[in-house]
Amino acid sequence: MAERNMIITIGREYGSGGHEIGEKLAKELGINFYDNKLVELASARSGLDANAVAHTDEKAPGLFVSGYTPTLSDQLFYAQSDFIRSRVANKESFVIVGRCSNSVLYGYADSLDVFIYAPLNKRIQRVIDFPEYHTNLAGKEMTAEMARKEIKRCDKARLTYYQYYSEFRWGRKEGYDILIDSSLLGIDGTVEMLAEIARRQFS
Amino acid sequence: MAERNMIITIGREYGSGGHEIGEKLAKELGINFYDNKLVELASARSGLDANAVAHTDEKAPGLFVSGYTPTLSDQLFYAQSDFIRSRVANKESFVIVGRCSNSVLYGYADSLDVFIYAPLNKRIQRVIDFPEYHTNLAGKEMTAEMARKEIKRCDKARLTYYQYYSEFRWGRKEGYDILIDSSLLGIDGTVEMLAEIARRQFS
Repeated sequence: MAERNMIITIGREYGSGGHEIGEKLAKELGINFYDNKLVELASARSGLDANAVAHTDEKAPGLFVSGYTPTLSDQLFYAQSDFIRSRVANKESFVIVGRCSNSVLYGYADSLDVFIYAPLNKRIQRVIDFPEYHTNLAGKEMTAEMARKEIKRCDKARLTYYQYYSEFRWGRKEGYDILIDSSLLGIDGTVEMLAEIARRQFS
Repeated sequence: MAERNMIITIGREYGSGGHEIGEKLAKELGINFYDNKLVELASARSGLDANAVAHTDEKAPGLFVSGYTPTLSDQLFYAQSDFIRSRVANKESFVIVGRCSNSVLYGYADSLDVFIYAPLNKRIQRVIDFPEYHTNLAGKEMTAEMARKEIKRCDKARLTYYQYYSEFRWGRKEGYDILIDSSLLGIDGTVEMLAEIARRQFS
């Protein structure tokens, strides 16, 4: 049975569980998963220094933008975009989280473009509950106020990065096939629903 | 088996098939369906003249707004809101299209709030193909350009009405549980998916 390769892009609000959903979705469908590890892969390909790169990743270039020379942030973005598109040329099936991937693949692939969001109070609770959000705490306990600030900070960084590199607007319906509040069906319920949609779309 | 009553609100772009999806979804779930017929019901209840009412329905009040006296548009909106909320108090299950119903029910019911959209070219094709969009044609044939203008006009009217009466923003994720491009799964596929989500949420 001939099947099309599945390409699923996921944009997400910080603390919405979008990363977990993407990872579980890829596992459920038995396809590859890309997130920030992509940065290293892409930068290795293009010869950028992976260490320098790790500090400019998904931050907008801000004051360092020049009209003449591509900044490190720009170079990284182009390298990542090349890498993502090469996966498509390679007929690979994958889920990719972040990286403006819906915009990067626009015109290159008939991807399923998803955005995951959730009410602020639910995201605060998730950021408090799950240790993967606690990497910058330096041993302190995550309070609701700290979680709220971290959510604002990260979403602002994502929006600014997205606004700079994408032709769509972050989290606005025009750039996506479906936007879903992860608290409606929960993480696993959302994964199931998206898997069913993907199987239907790419069959 | 005790089940909660199902309440589903649907906002939609003109030509996206949101009305048809709402109608089929109600039939699939075996529950009531409300759309502009609601206007007559609500106005009958409140004693407003149904004929006068038919001409102010889902248009923003514009220049006729007064800080002191509710306009006919305002009175109609309040009457409709009362009617919608009374369905909830009555433990009824229903699908309602338009009428800022997600905002009207906010705090009154744990409704499933859906927004249906579609790319402009697909909506133009739908408006050309389906006679229910041809009521204002006066015998002329619907062209792509006429369809495009009608879509712009109607969406602008809906957005303005919504902006005036709702605390959310029309078609922005914050007011909805799920937003879906109807061309992803088609009308019937979208109905199936929403029915499954509703059964899950309200079981």
